[in-house]
Amino acid sequence: MDLIATLKCADQPGIVHAMTKAVLACGGNIIENQQFTDLETNIFVMRTRFESDLDLAAATTTWNAELDKFNPDLKLRPTAQPLRALIMVSKESHCLRDLMYLRELEELNIEIPVVVSNHESLRDLVEAQNFKFEYIPTLDKVQAEKQLSQLMGQHAIDFVVLARYMQVLSAEFCRENAGKIINIHHSFLPGFKGAKPYHQAHQRGVKIIGATAHFVTADLDEGPIIEQDIGHITHSATAEDMIALGRDIERRVLSRAVKLYAEDKIFLVGNRTVVFN
Amino acid sequence: MDLIATLKCADQPGIVHAMTKAVLACGGNIIENQQFTDLETNIFVMRTRFESDLDLAAATTTWNAELDKFNPDLKLRPTAQPLRALIMVSKESHCLRDLMYLRELEELNIEIPVVVSNHESLRDLVEAQNFKFEYIPTLDKVQAEKQLSQLMGQHAIDFVVLARYMQVLSAEFCRENAGKIINIHHSFLPGFKGAKPYHQAHQRGVKIIGATAHFVTADLDEGPIIEQDIGHITHSATAEDMIALGRDIERRVLSRAVKLYAEDKIFLVGNRTVVFN
Amino acid sequence: MDLIATLKCADQPGIVHAMTKAVLACGGNIIENQQFTDLETNIFVMRTRFESDLDLAAATTTWNAELDKFNPDLKLRPTAQPLRALIMVSKESHCLRDLMYLRELEELNIEIPVVVSNHESLRDLVEAQNFKFEYIPTLDKVQAEKQLSQLMGQHAIDFVVLARYMQVLSAEFCRENAGKIINIHHSFLPGFKGAKPYHQAHQRGVKIIGATAHFVTADLDEGPIIEQDIGHITHSATAEDMIALGRDIERRVLSRAVKLYAEDKIFLVGNRTVVFN
Amino acid sequence: MDLIATLKCADQPGIVHAMTKAVLACGGNIIENQQFTDLETNIFVMRTRFESDLDLAAATTTWNAELDKFNPDLKLRPTAQPLRALIMVSKESHCLRDLMYLRELEELNIEIPVVVSNHESLRDLVEAQNFKFEYIPTLDKVQAEKQLSQLMGQHAIDFVVLARYMQVLSAEFCRENAGKIINIHHSFLPGFKGAKPYHQAHQRGVKIIGATAHFVTADLDEGPIIEQDIGHITHSATAEDMIALGRDIERRVLSRAVKLYAEDKIFLVGNRTVVFN
Repeated sequence: MDLIATLKCADQPGIVHAMTKAVLACGGNIIENQQFTDLETNIFVMRTRFESDLDLAAATTTWNAELDKFNPDLKLRPTAQPLRALIMVSKESHCLRDLMYLRELEELNIEIPVVVSNHESLRDLVEAQNFKFEYIPTLDKVQAEKQLSQLMGQHAIDFVVLARYMQVLSAEFCRENAGKIINIHHSFLPGFKGAKPYHQAHQRGVKIIGATAHFVTADLDEGPIIEQDIGHITHSATAEDMIALGRDIERRVLSRAVKLYAEDKIFLVGNRTVVFN
Repeated sequence: MDLIATLKCADQPGIVHAMTKAVLACGGNIIENQQFTDLETNIFVMRTRFESDLDLAAATTTWNAELDKFNPDLKLRPTAQPLRALIMVSKESHCLRDLMYLRELEELNIEIPVVVSNHESLRDLVEAQNFKFEYIPTLDKVQAEKQLSQLMGQHAIDFVVLARYMQVLSAEFCRENAGKIINIHHSFLPGFKGAKPYHQAHQRGVKIIGATAHFVTADLDEGPIIEQDIGHITHSATAEDMIALGRDIERRVLSRAVKLYAEDKIFLVGNRTVVFN
Repeated sequence: MDLIATLKCADQPGIVHAMTKAVLACGGNIIENQQFTDLETNIFVMRTRFESDLDLAAATTTWNAELDKFNPDLKLRPTAQPLRALIMVSKESHCLRDLMYLRELEELNIEIPVVVSNHESLRDLVEAQNFKFEYIPTLDKVQAEKQLSQLMGQHAIDFVVLARYMQVLSAEFCRENAGKIINIHHSFLPGFKGAKPYHQAHQRGVKIIGATAHFVTADLDEGPIIEQDIGHITHSATAEDMIALGRDIERRVLSRAVKLYAEDKIFLVGNRTVVFN
Repeated sequence: MDLIATLKCADQPGIVHAMTKAVLACGGNIIENQQFTDLETNIFVMRTRFESDLDLAAATTTWNAELDKFNPDLKLRPTAQPLRALIMVSKESHCLRDLMYLRELEELNIEIPVVVSNHESLRDLVEAQNFKFEYIPTLDKVQAEKQLSQLMGQHAIDFVVLARYMQVLSAEFCRENAGKIINIHHSFLPGFKGAKPYHQAHQRGVKIIGATAHFVTADLDEGPIIEQDIGHITHSATAEDMIALGRDIERRVLSRAVKLYAEDKIFLVGNRTVVFN
């Protein structure tokens, strides 16, 4: 059985040795292994993909036996098992389309049990591809987030993707779901925070625009950055041209971030991410 | 004779027609012609390179005759004639080296009559390549800028390049030399203004760093952007790694901006640039 | 009326002057003007977008009157009028999806009167978006191209887009439609011609893959290049990973090429293209 | 003591476990660890940087004791110890300048005991920076390579860098120094092999040019690729413009490859490289 183990703990000697003992005790062989020690926080993170003769439960027991002494944040799961993503959108569909299409192609190993929107406009697109669509109006924000939490529980959601969802989530909701909500910001953070970043970029006369996928925190547009990319523009680009180019950058950056998350390749270390790419 | 004409004026019908009449009246042929109308300001800019049977003085007279009615900002000069750049540095040499080397290769058609620094540390490097080096300490800033202005006059300087000159110029000096001072900022503006941008970038956990060449204005790091480029980094990059990668981006971006300036390809339109690339 | 004029002829003095006379005679004003002289072939190309008081027919007469003496290849058309594209696909849909979506967003100003395929597999996708789908099997190639030509006539097709159409067109068909068929080749030409370029790239151990949009000529994969882009890969990328990354590059490159064509920004000069971007 | 161990062997269970035992037996802690299994050849490679209480000799003995059973290609060395590079040039200096400068900045941890050229033209540049310069004419190739081999022995050279050395080395010399000679090819291989690649690229009308750092093998321009990068060009770029842009790409790509080599991050696996970046 092909398993992925992810581990985070204070750095100390012997962790990798204990991991290899656990793998051998599973009758296993390492397929992929990546590790990183963050010198500022002294936090060690590791992602190990391995073939195991034991099933998930037995392998987990084996790993805990070897690694408990390091007091780690440790998780094992079958590599093949897709994570379950709830996708939130407003009116723009480019990121959502890409996520649905890449899932169809099996480039993204995720389930999408439900797509949530504060508008009805993308219902047809979503339902035409046989995904469930839920309209949650945001007039009453408290009520809306209550509904959202219920949906998440009901569908056993692993993580939330804000695929151009133009609403701010409450600080409380962000804290409860820390490290589980990925947003695409349509600018090269920390460049242009807040609304209408392409108009800000045009006003400033930049020669490059970008997009940033990041974890959502209570502090708007300040969450840990997962992935960024850019495109070059010239003086002749209008704000509308930037929005058009931006769409292509946004969907690419968000899809990459979701893929990394779906493969357990992102670790939160302080306010930064470690990404095993 | 190969000439470059640059023109800026309010947009109105007939400008290009008048230009072509001027070229024909010079017995000329257009080699390159680029134009742009900025819709927000209604400003029209044009760069025309042409072969002329007339010399510079006669061609200028001819152009003025045809184009004066548009009340333009109009300039003609021989394409082959290098602009004269004063380069300012502090202790880091990577941008300066590139400029000197590209000039030697004749990729940059500029003269460098003098290199100015607020430190002595790069004197040997500069003098070894037979450029003049002037040390101007900045303890007394008023005095330093007075010296600088004298040097500029004495050497008939066309433009100033701040090739990692770590001092802020006075608002007055900036205004007097508006559109004539190019700075390299070691960040992807407007991302990380001010000092130590790579440390700021590291702290923020960005996945891309960049550099920005811009005209210097009294408003620090807010001048019109000429050129930008970026490089990708990962979580494993330290601030020092970013500085190292940044050097390569900075010199590339600054050298491109200087080349564009030296070929009369940059126009200031409001707080933005039009760059004919 | 907003018009685009495109012109190609042997370079000689007076062309731009004559053009400006034509624009003034149309009571017009130039909005965009780009020109280029290819020194090897001495061919001059120009694209001029202008506001005209005259309608298309009258403007065309006016332009011909001024420019006929240069014996040019000259065409005027309304900027707003979409070109009509016939899109050909086999089984893969990523490029087709992008073209349909960008048209829906009005980023691409084209009509798509019909999508042609040698397989039935994309019929549902195409028809669900209310485009016409025609299945043309390729067992009998002569017959297939006859059908294709009929469709092109019937739908007044301006250009053909091979959006991952995995069949080779006959030399005769290519010649008849020279400069009117755009193909996306899934490699960074001239790197890996022919079939399975990603497998070739993997075998060779390259660190970058790419895609190339080019005009189709009788000489397979040797037609004039319009647009290229790339993506970085590492040793860990399998051929399948390259195919996945490649999809994103291919669709981006092809969509850009189609946009450039739809805006009359591509000129064929010898075996190369001039692209006004 | 900070040590780097590199290991290559047939993939099999227990290798990483044995490595961690060796590290613990050295009283050590892993600082960096990267590994990769190539599925086509079943070759496993690993690079481990660790702090050791033992010195190099004792640590090597310890590692051999634990890992000999895997019959590995295993090497340990002090991280701080620079590799010794012999740099070969012809007349162009851009790559050489970059290597010397990055060494001065200590971005490159290498020694350059000697620079060899088949021309005298770069002697002054090299000697001005206090490096040894050897002129080896290539009229008699056998004799030239004999001299070269002697120099390599005499200076205890670890690897050779062809920094735009425009001569072909003999198949025999290439075989003797397999995996130890890095070349920069001024094209995006496998695009334009052989001489004058920028002229070939111009002729073909490409929109992107590139450079490739690769190991030298007897099969010219076919050696394993280490690093590649590209730059965008337009129709207006002449072959000379491409050469100018190419210089900047070449030096960047070669310097990165040399840095990777100097940090033991490149592994040869079949005709491909594994690069731990």
